[in-house]
Amino acid sequence: MTYDIPTWADCAPRLVAVAAGRSPADLVIRNTRLVNVQSREVLDGWQVAVADGRFAYVGPDANHCIGDGTEVIDGQGRYLIPGLCDGHMHIESGMLTPAEFAAAVIPHGTTSMFADPHEIANVLGLAGVRMMHDEALMQPVNIFTQMPSCAPSAPGLETTGFAITADDVAEAMAWPGIVGLGEMMNFPGVIQGDAQMLAEMAATMRAGKTVGGHYASPDKGIAFHAYAAGGAADDHEGTAESDAIARVRQGMRSMMRLGSAWYDVESQITAVTQRGLDPRNFILCTDDCMAGTLVNDGHMNRVVHHAIACGCDPVVALQMATINTATHFGLERELGSIAPGRRADMILTSDLVTLPIEQVFARGRLVAKDGTITVDCPHYDWPASTRRTVYLGKALVADDFAIPAPQGANAVSARVIGVVENQAPTKALTFELPVTEGRVQATGEVCQIALVERHRGTGGVVNGFVSGFGYTGRMAIASTVAHDSHHMIVVGTDAGCMALAANRLGDIGGGITVWQDGAEIALVPLPIAGLMSDAPAATVAAQAQAMVAAMADCGCTLNNAYMQHSLLALVVIPELRISDLGLVDVTTFQLTPLFETPA
Amino acid sequence: MTYDIPTWADCAPRLVAVAAGRSPADLVIRNTRLVNVQSREVLDGWQVAVADGRFAYVGPDANHCIGDGTEVIDGQGRYLIPGLCDGHMHIESGMLTPAEFAAAVIPHGTTSMFADPHEIANVLGLAGVRMMHDEALMQPVNIFTQMPSCAPSAPGLETTGFAITADDVAEAMAWPGIVGLGEMMNFPGVIQGDAQMLAEMAATMRAGKTVGGHYASPDKGIAFHAYAAGGAADDHEGTAESDAIARVRQGMRSMMRLGSAWYDVESQITAVTQRGLDPRNFILCTDDCMAGTLVNDGHMNRVVHHAIACGCDPVVALQMATINTATHFGLERELGSIAPGRRADMILTSDLVTLPIEQVFARGRLVAKDGTITVDCPHYDWPASTRRTVYLGKALVADDFAIPAPQGANAVSARVIGVVENQAPTKALTFELPVTEGRVQATGEVCQIALVERHRGTGGVVNGFVSGFGYTGRMAIASTVAHDSHHMIVVGTDAGCMALAANRLGDIGGGITVWQDGAEIALVPLPIAGLMSDAPAATVAAQAQAMVAAMADCGCTLNNAYMQHSLLALVVIPELRISDLGLVDVTTFQLTPLFETPA
Repeated sequence: MTYDIPTWADCAPRLVAVAAGRSPADLVIRNTRLVNVQSREVLDGWQVAVADGRFAYVGPDANHCIGDGTEVIDGQGRYLIPGLCDGHMHIESGMLTPAEFAAAVIPHGTTSMFADPHEIANVLGLAGVRMMHDEALMQPVNIFTQMPSCAPSAPGLETTGFAITADDVAEAMAWPGIVGLGEMMNFPGVIQGDAQMLAEMAATMRAGKTVGGHYASPDKGIAFHAYAAGGAADDHEGTAESDAIARVRQGMRSMMRLGSAWYDVESQITAVTQRGLDPRNFILCTDDCMAGTLVNDGHMNRVVHHAIACGCDPVVALQMATINTATHFGLERELGSIAPGRRADMILTSDLVTLPIEQVFARGRLVAKDGTITVDCPHYDWPASTRRTVYLGKALVADDFAIPAPQGANAVSARVIGVVENQAPTKALTFELPVTEGRVQATGEVCQIALVERHRGTGGVVNGFVSGFGYTGRMAIASTVAHDSHHMIVVGTDAGCMALAANRLGDIGGGITVWQDGAEIALVPLPIAGLMSDAPAATVAAQAQAMVAAMADCGCTLNNAYMQHSLLALVVIPELRISDLGLVDVTTFQLTPLFETPA
Repeated sequence: MTYDIPTWADCAPRLVAVAAGRSPADLVIRNTRLVNVQSREVLDGWQVAVADGRFAYVGPDANHCIGDGTEVIDGQGRYLIPGLCDGHMHIESGMLTPAEFAAAVIPHGTTSMFADPHEIANVLGLAGVRMMHDEALMQPVNIFTQMPSCAPSAPGLETTGFAITADDVAEAMAWPGIVGLGEMMNFPGVIQGDAQMLAEMAATMRAGKTVGGHYASPDKGIAFHAYAAGGAADDHEGTAESDAIARVRQGMRSMMRLGSAWYDVESQITAVTQRGLDPRNFILCTDDCMAGTLVNDGHMNRVVHHAIACGCDPVVALQMATINTATHFGLERELGSIAPGRRADMILTSDLVTLPIEQVFARGRLVAKDGTITVDCPHYDWPASTRRTVYLGKALVADDFAIPAPQGANAVSARVIGVVENQAPTKALTFELPVTEGRVQATGEVCQIALVERHRGTGGVVNGFVSGFGYTGRMAIASTVAHDSHHMIVVGTDAGCMALAANRLGDIGGGITVWQDGAEIALVPLPIAGLMSDAPAATVAAQAQAMVAAMADCGCTLNNAYMQHSLLALVVIPELRISDLGLVDVTTFQLTPLFETPA
């Protein structure tokens, strides 16, 4: 079973014949209110005829396209809108394979995704990207791959499983499903003229593809302008109206996110709804969605609905998730509108404001109806090597998580990663911690954090302290989802539990595990690269929900508790993080000692 | 001297360095009101810095980009707008070479042209297209070439100098200056599934380039939809608001023309100004401009000004001649806006409504000031073969233009091409004409027309009759601009004058000549392919003006008299035309006898 679709060039003779009435269409949908995103109109009573997975006829009367074998659907006066596009996202964030991610979002009307497999690139390098790319191309909907640009995210401050080079980028540009370069996160590098970053962007531009941006700073001064001069064509890191406007003024497209934990649409869409800027350069996306969001809340339909709720005209909001996205990636003749030659990706919905996703068609095929998928999403045969990526090098023991004090010290002044509720940046805190039998004791609101090396089996464990989770009792939680280099982050109050948790993930090849009083109380197995499950979204969502409940059982009171955990090694976001190389001061981008030197 | 510009990829390191303040810009313009066509805003006080011919910095303060060697220009509070783009045009219509056409339009602010060298393709085939393409690439402004699609325009009804094949199209798609396929005029062929036409469009689409459309029919029914399914991405043949809307609804861009004799903006732009459709898919163009228009009236500045006069918001009108065009051709990251990385093509103007073109910059270089060009436009060294394209095969004599009557007839009922004032279509008329000494006499308002074969020296002369010019006395006018196959059209009242005029063009290699009483009274030499002059636009405009005055001296009262003459062999426009194969009924697309058969 494949879902290959011929190119417009290949099937143009048939499309012309169908539109001319010489050949019957495969599918005709009549009696619709067609949302024309090119002209920004709703066209009552319009009809479409589909052949070879593409629109052959779009107009007031498709009767002449109906013949033997043509399926005819009555749209019952519902709106017919283009399938929704997610302009930038990471499939791994759902802890799902591309197939299961597709299966989860198709019933929500998402028919095109622009996915950056940045996480697997850190674990498996170019080979992992290729596997994600290949599974993406097997799906009944369109998943285009953005070649990851920054692995490691912070060269010199962390060690990834594999590194992405400029040559890798140049090679990937020739793959069939590559649509551009994934978010260029190393914005300081670009601004400073880093040769590798500029070479990656140059390779992408020379291939005629789109350079994704990621400028995660509120500074819109000289640094921002220098970044724009480097070639990034879009950016999704804006959070304020002024951010969105600044990007569009620089010739970039402003991507506005509503993800599981991103809420950047409401604050930015006023650039269009209140300031009246031309909407063409604004795009909606999710960036990161966890499985629970996909199961419970939706996907791009949620984002479009939210944009409308923020005051955006429904057709303009739809443009931001259809034709704007397609145009951005050079695909406006391929998808993103209901027009001749385009892939017949479309949705029947009875209301343009609440946007119920009633029937979804991809490439002319019914792929979901009333929230239920109606097609198979084929699985790639992930090789065994991708399921053995957690190399601890040895069985860890409690002593590996002991933190020796400086010789003779009775107490230490320790640097502590301070988790802040509802914020990604941490605080660099200092706590006075007691010493017992030569070992520093985490006490009170401080517990231990360890970064366990898992790519090369070095047996390396970097220990430190973290505050803010609220854990009590004897517990530990370990995760091989550990942005961005994806070693293993273990947080706990008890060295024994920490060793048990870490060894458990070593045994099963990765995932998330929560331990209390020496017993496992929750597990999310993520056997593929330690990042993704084999299971459907509903299963993963239930496992993740149980895992978060287990964190709460251990005393954690944070919102987005698991996300906070998984980001503690993200050594590009201030202020203090941990990596396999040590504790990282992310204000100076330098390694820093665990203990403050007495003055 | 070349005007090569490095790619963004190649010069990104320098652009970043300039924007970051580490390297001085080549040029800074301060104190402007910058028209931002991406956001649809005017940004007071903005500044630009240019390096390597591209924008490095666009923002409120470029002081940090100024250093040794930076030229600094005070914009004096004037508007800074992107250089204007002509979305579809034929250079040969100006009877100028690409270099002289560029020199004529640069002072009017045109910095990008999308040119279809359809005329030279009919005379010199692919080799001629390549020479136009090569001269285009030598210019200080951007001239992209659309590969001609339809030579001959009417297969079977005319013989061109060369024919364009699908293989030619595929070959040309690899040339550096080819941006797409020129207007697919054979719309009946597309609708009928003609293999060559579909192959040409397929080759273009496979190359990732843009298929130009040309659907010259008011029928927006099934035929129109079938044409749209074939792959045409734009169309400039609309004349009514409903035409423009229909094209955009089909996912095509609607190109609206204001040429020397095209007036299709006012009637169509209401789709935006009154119906409120999204303007992004509307583009302004000229299609055909004669030299006199360029000298006296302007070029794209005239079109934009006209659109504004028709009620269009000035910034929206500018979008239609800048970013909309660039996006259409996949060049939005290359030109069409004032934003980092783009070619620094821009205009200083003190008024957004009247649009005086005060300073023009192309690739960061001042190319015109106050209506005067300030750079050289290099000439291609056209080989001798391109200057010997008028092969008559023999010296023509008066007898070659004699029209023998049917045996024994004293009078005939002759088909006459009826020229209609201010319209391109002709009428198929019938006149009773007298016979003297066995020869039919053109009398009264009827005079003779002859199509003289000039590509292969066959000596062929096809004779017929035409009405509507109003010629009196003994005169003739001959032209090797004779759309689309560009043989030679001779119209006259006197066979001797007709022979003199035809031989004159044979002697000088082509052009337009007017004869009265046995003497030449006007001449426009067009030595290159019989289509283009070597001279500047002002010279050609003066020669053409004198030629039109000579037509008037001979009694002609038509507006656009010369254009009417040159279109009489355009055997794709109804109703009656002449070709090297005979008289053509362009309602049935068949050859038809000169004389009606008695009932």
